[in-house]
Amino acid sequence: MQLLSCYLFQKLSQSQIEQIAAITQEQQIQKGQWLFHKGQKATHIYLVKEGAIELVIKVEDTIEIPIAVIRPNDGCVGIGALVEPYLYSLSARCLNDSTLLVIEQPKLQNLMRSNPELGCTIMSNLAQKLLARLKETRQEVKIHFMNLVRSASF
Amino acid sequence: MQLLSCYLFQKLSQSQIEQIAAITQEQQIQKGQWLFHKGQKATHIYLVKEGAIELVIKVEDTIEIPIAVIRPNDGCVGIGALVEPYLYSLSARCLNDSTLLVIEQPKLQNLMRSNPELGCTIMSNLAQKLLARLKETRQEVKIHFMNLVRSASF
Repeated sequence: MQLLSCYLFQKLSQSQIEQIAAITQEQQIQKGQWLFHKGQKATHIYLVKEGAIELVIKVEDTIEIPIAVIRPNDGCVGIGALVEPYLYSLSARCLNDSTLLVIEQPKLQNLMRSNPELGCTIMSNLAQKLLARLKETRQEVKIHFMNLVRSASF
Repeated sequence: MQLLSCYLFQKLSQSQIEQIAAITQEQQIQKGQWLFHKGQKATHIYLVKEGAIELVIKVEDTIEIPIAVIRPNDGCVGIGALVEPYLYSLSARCLNDSTLLVIEQPKLQNLMRSNPELGCTIMSNLAQKLLARLKETRQEVKIHFMNLVRSASF
């Protein structure tokens, strides 16, 4: 099942996965359409069933820094929906015509509240992913830093 | 109580905080002493009761990039102890003679496993902090990126 491929839902039991599946819906979305913009209230989590979603940071309206392209089995977008203050931290746009699996934030929050074991597993999975991303991003800063040190040395 | 000031333990009930306090010990540590190095197995979480801890990334043995200085009420160090594969992701050194509050990783894991509601709150707090740090670090990358764009334009 597609849900099982998402890092958020790893280590969940079969019955826990079925509880997630029960609050998941399919949605068609067209190429070029925005799912959400940075700073908006995070109302949904999206998994890609078919197609692709690109995550970007917009700089000064005209420039976009590409962060990642999410394809089937690549995880999910919209994790701001799991973390206070529940805002999207990036912008997401459909790269191709896509079929998404969509989970509404309040339904997932209710499920996690009524089943803290499921909640603890999902939040542990999320923390693990965020720490890995933080390390990658720090690595980029380190490379920039080293380039600055090197350019200052010559 | 000192534990309450750490973001990890926010929103815990009084009895949950007492359960954390019961597995917390004090430790004296001298200026200049390393608590841990990046990549080592994360066996403890540390809070600063008195003094200060500096977090650094080492680059090519001789260069250190300062990441943060943690003082009393500034949170904790060693969150790798909460996230698989349970490795420290930075190096930590004592900036002044300090008194630390120390929590052993296996004790905290056992407590979270036997009390998933407490575990879910701690992991949600951690995910919130990591997402905030990720945004800050992305902001640094964005600034470097814009500097590159600007220097290429002139």
